[in-house]
Amino acid sequence: MSLIQNLQWRHAVKAYDPTKKVSQENIDKIVEAARLAPTSSGLQPFKLIVIDNQELKAKLVDGALNPECMRDCSHVIIFAAWDRYTEERIDYIYDMTTDERGLPRGRFSSYTDQIKGIYLNETAEENHAHIARQTYIALGLALAQAAELKIDTTPVEGFSNAHIDEVLGLKELGLKSVSLMYVGYADEENDWMRTMKKVRLPKEEFIIEMN
Amino acid sequence: MSLIQNLQWRHAVKAYDPTKKVSQENIDKIVEAARLAPTSSGLQPFKLIVIDNQELKAKLVDGALNPECMRDCSHVIIFAAWDRYTEERIDYIYDMTTDERGLPRGRFSSYTDQIKGIYLNETAEENHAHIARQTYIALGLALAQAAELKIDTTPVEGFSNAHIDEVLGLKELGLKSVSLMYVGYADEENDWMRTMKKVRLPKEEFIIEMN
Repeated sequence: MSLIQNLQWRHAVKAYDPTKKVSQENIDKIVEAARLAPTSSGLQPFKLIVIDNQELKAKLVDGALNPECMRDCSHVIIFAAWDRYTEERIDYIYDMTTDERGLPRGRFSSYTDQIKGIYLNETAEENHAHIARQTYIALGLALAQAAELKIDTTPVEGFSNAHIDEVLGLKELGLKSVSLMYVGYADEENDWMRTMKKVRLPKEEFIIEMN
Repeated sequence: MSLIQNLQWRHAVKAYDPTKKVSQENIDKIVEAARLAPTSSGLQPFKLIVIDNQELKAKLVDGALNPECMRDCSHVIIFAAWDRYTEERIDYIYDMTTDERGLPRGRFSSYTDQIKGIYLNETAEENHAHIARQTYIALGLALAQAAELKIDTTPVEGFSNAHIDEVLGLKELGLKSVSLMYVGYADEENDWMRTMKKVRLPKEEFIIEMN
């Protein structure tokens, strides 16, 4: 099926079947789509945290808008972004990139000096606002990959970031949670969204042609 | 090809062939993937502006990091987000949704009251920060759709938002530009990124398993 057909197929699932687990092979594919996502300056400034342990899921549920989905889904994937840009983080990515490409380290230093000049003069909050945006590219691609596999998902912002960061010790890792993704198989009887028509703005309202 | 294969295929193109245009049919598919993107609470709080007119592209180029790409690509797609949430905008989307689903208007009013209670008490800047994130989901899906069609793209943040908003009169539309996407066919000789290996953090560094 094409990407468009997969996007038409998917919806934000509202109830999961707790007896059905997603295979490791399929979780790997979903994560791989996120790993391949483009990011600003190629910095990949985030990590994916993959959880399928019921006790840990129970600890994360405080403040979640859909606690039953957290409990009943197969896996929770947390998109956790760098708290800020640092010289070391930028250099780490660019050193890895030049090494992998067989280029001398510093090959892109005029570019990295430029981005350091911007980011390292911003506040951590300004940095994080930019970084958090990048995670949504990966979120979209992970949702699309799950849809290709006919695996159900729910993209989630409705949760307590502070609580999740605390439970998972993200501050110590220099990370902040941005969004979640529930992954699993819908409980078709209780997933009230399943029978609802997917509604989007008509093309004429969504696109502005200026020529 | 699978989504993962398409993502492996794509890269941020650094030079376009000005003689090659993308067909309207393919532009429609790229925009359709963005239209189908999920958004927070289903609000679709952004528009896509599609431009292929050379004079208008020339006016937009001020402040762009890759001015030659703006000039030589086939189409520029601008992701422009609502400047803020308003009661009218939220109601418009939910009235359309209930109408399309054959449900009475107000069917989701307890939910929309809740999100209005949050968003309408925030500043326009806080609103826009949340809205801007949503556009990146659509950006990722549009890039993936272009890759499925073997059409080249460049996702772009390096431009003057204020200049683009001014030239396109976005303020009057209640919109603010967030990102751009160049769409076209690479100039293979001058696209220096083409021969470079795609580098990403290895899976072991990208994923944190916590169980």
